[in-house]
Amino acid sequence: MSVKTTNDLLLDELRDLYHAEKQLLKALPKMAKAAKNAKLQDAFTHHREETQGQVDRLEQVFDLLGKAARAKRCEAMAGLIEEGEEMMEEITTPEVLDAALITAAQKVEHYEIASYGSARELADSLGLADVAKLLDETLAEEKAADSKLNALAIQSINKAALTVAA
Amino acid sequence: MSVKTTNDLLLDELRDLYHAEKQLLKALPKMAKAAKNAKLQDAFTHHREETQGQVDRLEQVFDLLGKAARAKRCEAMAGLIEEGEEMMEEITTPEVLDAALITAAQKVEHYEIASYGSARELADSLGLADVAKLLDETLAEEKAADSKLNALAIQSINKAALTVAA
Repeated sequence: MSVKTTNDLLLDELRDLYHAEKQLLKALPKMAKAAKNAKLQDAFTHHREETQGQVDRLEQVFDLLGKAARAKRCEAMAGLIEEGEEMMEEITTPEVLDAALITAAQKVEHYEIASYGSARELADSLGLADVAKLLDETLAEEKAADSKLNALAIQSINKAALTVAA
Repeated sequence: MSVKTTNDLLLDELRDLYHAEKQLLKALPKMAKAAKNAKLQDAFTHHREETQGQVDRLEQVFDLLGKAARAKRCEAMAGLIEEGEEMMEEITTPEVLDAALITAAQKVEHYEIASYGSARELADSLGLADVAKLLDETLAEEKAADSKLNALAIQSINKAALTVAA
């Protein structure tokens, strides 16, 4: 797609996000399965449901813009997910894998925080209040998911990982 | 490298960050050259200098840990930089390219915020106060760089991009 205007740039960002979210829908169940800690499993399972809602919200946004909901391969998210998969293959200590899964998931959340933040600002500057509102709802969820993972890391996961002898 | 303990995981994260920062050192001058807005050029040039300091800080961290400063290919940052390069090739409208460069740069900043945040928490849990302090200094710089880019987008870049006719 050729990007010439702010409208094109917003659409390009949304297609990138649509691909990112769809990749994440497939990755999260694997992450939940790989996690040892029950709270971490729950966090991934809950975020899988939330991600489905975010995909639906993106489809509403495409609809508001009168554009087809089409995905554009997101290289960054592909890289993030590849790193997460390598971890699941290589780290055989469950407590340390939990800590690693949290770092991987927080990188994903931050990718989305940056992307939804930029898309929201572009929509705002274009006067697309309805679109900006939907993007803002997802942005708030991504920030909350990141905070929840951070608290989980500090309160329990990183401590459990320490019990593994060097 | 085989990751078995929290120490291994921290080292793995640091090697990933070391690669990410080194890739960014090469990308930022290209981004500064591609930017039209003088403040955006300055922001990229300033962050290039800051990034050199962050590389030096990572080398200090490796030193404190008694480990060689070695990079591990960071797929996510490679993906982020690839997306930025595609933008520079494909977007021919300077004002819209500026807006796109900001979104790309904020994704990079957020990747680093997540990575340094996780590494700092791991160092903290390991009782490595000196290491945590150095990582925290860089984390503060990355957050400030992100805020600066955000303000630039809202105050001027996104408005300038709107002047381009659809």
